[in-house]
Amino acid sequence: MGFFSKDIETLNDLFVHTLRDIYYAEQQIEKALPQMIDKATAPELKAGFEKHLEQTRGHIRRVEQVFEMHGAEAEEVDCPAIDGILEEADDVSGDVDDKQVLDAALIASAQAVEHYEMTRYGTLIAWAKQLGRDDCARVLAENLKEEVETDRKLTEMAESKINLRAAE
Amino acid sequence: MGFFSKDIETLNDLFVHTLRDIYYAEQQIEKALPQMIDKATAPELKAGFEKHLEQTRGHIRRVEQVFEMHGAEAEEVDCPAIDGILEEADDVSGDVDDKQVLDAALIASAQAVEHYEMTRYGTLIAWAKQLGRDDCARVLAENLKEEVETDRKLTEMAESKINLRAAE
Repeated sequence: MGFFSKDIETLNDLFVHTLRDIYYAEQQIEKALPQMIDKATAPELKAGFEKHLEQTRGHIRRVEQVFEMHGAEAEEVDCPAIDGILEEADDVSGDVDDKQVLDAALIASAQAVEHYEMTRYGTLIAWAKQLGRDDCARVLAENLKEEVETDRKLTEMAESKINLRAAE
Repeated sequence: MGFFSKDIETLNDLFVHTLRDIYYAEQQIEKALPQMIDKATAPELKAGFEKHLEQTRGHIRRVEQVFEMHGAEAEEVDCPAIDGILEEADDVSGDVDDKQVLDAALIASAQAVEHYEMTRYGTLIAWAKQLGRDDCARVLAENLKEEVETDRKLTEMAESKINLRAAE
């Protein structure tokens, strides 16, 4: 937490705090994805993660844009949630030997990451609108749209190919 | 992790491991919800959390049913993801003084929990089907359906009332 105790007094404070939380989360995801790319075996999964790394860099830029639009400093606050999700992804992938089963585990971990981002962007968009910042909401909605799309593609890839190979 | 290194060899092992992960997560959520009920101010939010506590107990029973159907021992494995999500919920709510802003923060935290459960059940259902366990998939789908419904109701409550009061 970058805030002192009871430092969130208004919905605007909570909005800025949560923006800093997702700013930290996106940067941790940017750091974690290269390892996931290395571990993935299926070429389409590797390519999917590579595309997501590019998108993540775009998301970081959009979050910085929202900080600027809103006149708040682009700082990070610790986000134990994404730390836990990424730690679990690393633990589980370290426990799997078979490459096809590992691909299935990697997709599941990536979808847990996506869902965390989806819920945070959903919340941030609702709060931005409530604060009369439709302009910020629109930028954040671009990130949300890409997260939802990535999650959908991962589900499709898992169900059409990756899980099938993992079960062989 | 309840498994030794490289102890996940097949998709079935991964399925059982992830079932143990959500079994632990549901029990941590059962422990965390009474505090969230205490902290909530809006009566409809308190009631929503109380209903979700009842549902969570039902989810634990259904997960135990799936362990039994699948012939696997009902054990828990550590789940750093849910630990992190709940730690963050506790940190943020400790930082908010205003009761209306706290309600908005609590809803956001509850939705992060819901999204974690949604992604895990989605994965487990896909893997159960791949393993030819449509019977297990059907039971898990009942939990997923309730998580999706709870998340939808929380969004509705946030957007129609809670965020509005928090912005006053």
